[in-house]
Amino acid sequence: MSKGIISKDEDYSQWFNDLVIKADLAEHSAVRGCMVIKPYGYSIWEKMQAVLDQMFKDTGHSNAYFPLFIPKSFFSKEASHVDGFAKECAVVTHYRLKNDGNGNIIVDEDAKLEEELIVRPTSETIIWNTYKGWIQSYRDLPLLINQWANVVRWEMRTRLFLRTTEFLWQEGHTAHATAEEAIAETEQMLHVYADFAENWLALPVIKGRKTANERFAGALDTYCIEALMQDGKALQAGTSHFLGQNFAKAFDVKFTSKEGKLDHVWATSWGVSTRLMGALVMAHSDDSGLVLPPKLAPIQVVIVPIFRSDEELAQISAVVDGLSKALKAKNIRVKYDNRDTQRPGFKFAEYELKGIPLRVAIGGRDLANGTAELARRDTKTKETVQQEGLVDHIEQLLEEIQKNIFQKALTFRNENTREANTYDEFKKMLDDTPGFISAHWDGTPETEQRIKEETKATIRCIPLDNKLEDGACILSGKPSTQRVLFARAY
Amino acid sequence: MSKGIISKDEDYSQWFNDLVIKADLAEHSAVRGCMVIKPYGYSIWEKMQAVLDQMFKDTGHSNAYFPLFIPKSFFSKEASHVDGFAKECAVVTHYRLKNDGNGNIIVDEDAKLEEELIVRPTSETIIWNTYKGWIQSYRDLPLLINQWANVVRWEMRTRLFLRTTEFLWQEGHTAHATAEEAIAETEQMLHVYADFAENWLALPVIKGRKTANERFAGALDTYCIEALMQDGKALQAGTSHFLGQNFAKAFDVKFTSKEGKLDHVWATSWGVSTRLMGALVMAHSDDSGLVLPPKLAPIQVVIVPIFRSDEELAQISAVVDGLSKALKAKNIRVKYDNRDTQRPGFKFAEYELKGIPLRVAIGGRDLANGTAELARRDTKTKETVQQEGLVDHIEQLLEEIQKNIFQKALTFRNENTREANTYDEFKKMLDDTPGFISAHWDGTPETEQRIKEETKATIRCIPLDNKLEDGACILSGKPSTQRVLFARAY
Repeated sequence: MSKGIISKDEDYSQWFNDLVIKADLAEHSAVRGCMVIKPYGYSIWEKMQAVLDQMFKDTGHSNAYFPLFIPKSFFSKEASHVDGFAKECAVVTHYRLKNDGNGNIIVDEDAKLEEELIVRPTSETIIWNTYKGWIQSYRDLPLLINQWANVVRWEMRTRLFLRTTEFLWQEGHTAHATAEEAIAETEQMLHVYADFAENWLALPVIKGRKTANERFAGALDTYCIEALMQDGKALQAGTSHFLGQNFAKAFDVKFTSKEGKLDHVWATSWGVSTRLMGALVMAHSDDSGLVLPPKLAPIQVVIVPIFRSDEELAQISAVVDGLSKALKAKNIRVKYDNRDTQRPGFKFAEYELKGIPLRVAIGGRDLANGTAELARRDTKTKETVQQEGLVDHIEQLLEEIQKNIFQKALTFRNENTREANTYDEFKKMLDDTPGFISAHWDGTPETEQRIKEETKATIRCIPLDNKLEDGACILSGKPSTQRVLFARAY
Repeated sequence: MSKGIISKDEDYSQWFNDLVIKADLAEHSAVRGCMVIKPYGYSIWEKMQAVLDQMFKDTGHSNAYFPLFIPKSFFSKEASHVDGFAKECAVVTHYRLKNDGNGNIIVDEDAKLEEELIVRPTSETIIWNTYKGWIQSYRDLPLLINQWANVVRWEMRTRLFLRTTEFLWQEGHTAHATAEEAIAETEQMLHVYADFAENWLALPVIKGRKTANERFAGALDTYCIEALMQDGKALQAGTSHFLGQNFAKAFDVKFTSKEGKLDHVWATSWGVSTRLMGALVMAHSDDSGLVLPPKLAPIQVVIVPIFRSDEELAQISAVVDGLSKALKAKNIRVKYDNRDTQRPGFKFAEYELKGIPLRVAIGGRDLANGTAELARRDTKTKETVQQEGLVDHIEQLLEEIQKNIFQKALTFRNENTREANTYDEFKKMLDDTPGFISAHWDGTPETEQRIKEETKATIRCIPLDNKLEDGACILSGKPSTQRVLFARAY
């Protein structure tokens, strides 16, 4: 326990909330359900954005920007879409305030909009309305666009990063000449997300398809990456949707093919959000604070001098100066904390809380011996090493830490993925050893719904690499050809 | 005239609108007053963002994110602020839609907010409400934060990029222990903006102070950079505000000084927006299309092959391959357009429209002679040069083009900045030779207002480097100690 953070074994939910706030990632704002992302949290999000943005560009996508507001009537155009989103949205009805004469600021009833505007919960409708003007021929396809934006969904129960009324995200919206191309795009972006999750967030994910019940409102097929948090609950970390021709039909977007035939365009959309910040915290952190994978850590190495006099500090600083320069030359993000207002112990706790992957301490004895003390955040192990060759050693250590954090999460997930063959076994597992449960299901929405109501567990996905296997549904006993992945989820 | 763009001499306003649309920068959306920023336009905005963001970080600022919504009551807390912004804002009153039973989607009156939320027109209020929790002592200061965000101001008359209901911007919000520090910050950020405008946008700007009439609602002092467009109208390209203790008092943000005294915090805010895209277009472009400064051009060099056979194209491509690699090695952004579906003349017009600074054409004769034809977008001059040494030549040319575009705009501004000594002369200048007019003013809001009403000209700024000079106000004849800069403005 550190700085007033409760232990995660005691109260995981409270631990997460404490940690997000104490580590300066985010806090609740004065607006119900909306958060303030603080500078330290935002700097991690910026790193995520930069990496993802480059991945999108490397796969041929361009960024653009579409309006925050969506005319209410647009929602009615795609039937299942309105059901999915209309229930939880911010509605703009007026465009002016006025003084009521008694010093109160009130809504000016004379400034009522003819048609209400919805603050976008997602942008398919406004974007496909725009694409109508951009697409006439096969030569205009594929259209590969991404948007970085804020969106609003009026959530009743909110949690920092995981479920907030406003959140930041990216939403890709692509248009294609054939279903095959659109499906290939949907799958490609799922792989991009999985690559990002595993190689940057150090978060092992299961790639799979959602069942019909859990599909995006308006999609024919929803792909997802699912991760397991340290409390054994699952978290959906990204989705990629094959939208078929639904939005093209709703907004009348047609193209002339090479052969001169007129047809509706095929669509995809895909997104990840600031929810990934929540996943990052929940997957790796401990009771001392954040554990950040080095590739996303704003500061990768912090150097703390241990000194008894200004003279000693000056001597240490001379050594650190050379070390810092050599680290920076290798693009390693290093900070030297030579404040004399705080003791080393205070600094150590602070950088543990903030999840800095590697701490280097140099004191008087190190000066004499040509050594330094290294402390890893992930394993909390320390070693005293020679200053000679230190830069290369640090570089290797950062790589090792990145791998170790991933491996630890992978081991945890493997240990907490179990097969259940009866409904009793299934329910007992959910309560006693939470995690992913691989079980047979008869393929019907009704069974899925009943399991959800009775156990709060949902089908997270049908894994892409699933092996076929004859079995009987845990609830109905009806025949099944494959297991699906259940869990209680965020 | 190109691709249906009207000549700017014929109708400057229409020329601007045509150009923004035809060059694929932006277009009007289905939502009144809101624009769609298209991929090509957005890629220029992204370059601006990246440069500015680095400049902010180099001056010690961090990014963060605050809510889109502001509780209505927050606006009432700073008296002049509410007057400035309450009249033009989007008001969220409900949080749910529902089906009325007849298949219509309507606002659910049961989901009315207790307190209306305003879509942020600017974020001083929500941010200072947050800062209250972040600032207790002088050790928490200065607090140097920037936010990249969308904002909404309900404008009655809108124009692409220049004045839109929703726009993208950055807003810096800093907190300081003393007035001096806050003023120094205000001035520093003005200089950052001027540096960016001149060295990246190639846009010469006048740094100055706004008069009381033109100040930001809630500021004690507003600094600005003002630029002159090709039609002789001025455009405010960025502002930096010294807010005194107004917002700290409104939101009760106090700090304990080193000496243990409790005092309100001093504030600044500063911003530039997608309006800069409008300035970029209006300042440099011509009847053939955009003219982009090389430092902000997404594509700096386009290479077009002129070929009569596949064999010839292959030979040209071999040469281009080496050239492209060498240019990329120098971080020059190059595109090779080897499409065989479009003729060279079509491509030339397209890249002129898009403002690509330099075009390289290589044909059969060039292969034989070891030459290439270079065409500059800014001067529309062509030269045939040896392929040997071409990379260095291109690198130098891009620098020269950047300088030339700035110099051309500077010469234009100098030629269109005039002194007026009588009101008649002033009014005649406004109509006959629009531009900046330097004239004496008696310093009163009343005179300024009357001039504005009678001539539509406003005081753009009191230049920072103004020389003192005795004179008589052009309207009132009262004594004045310095000239101020008037113009009709966007």
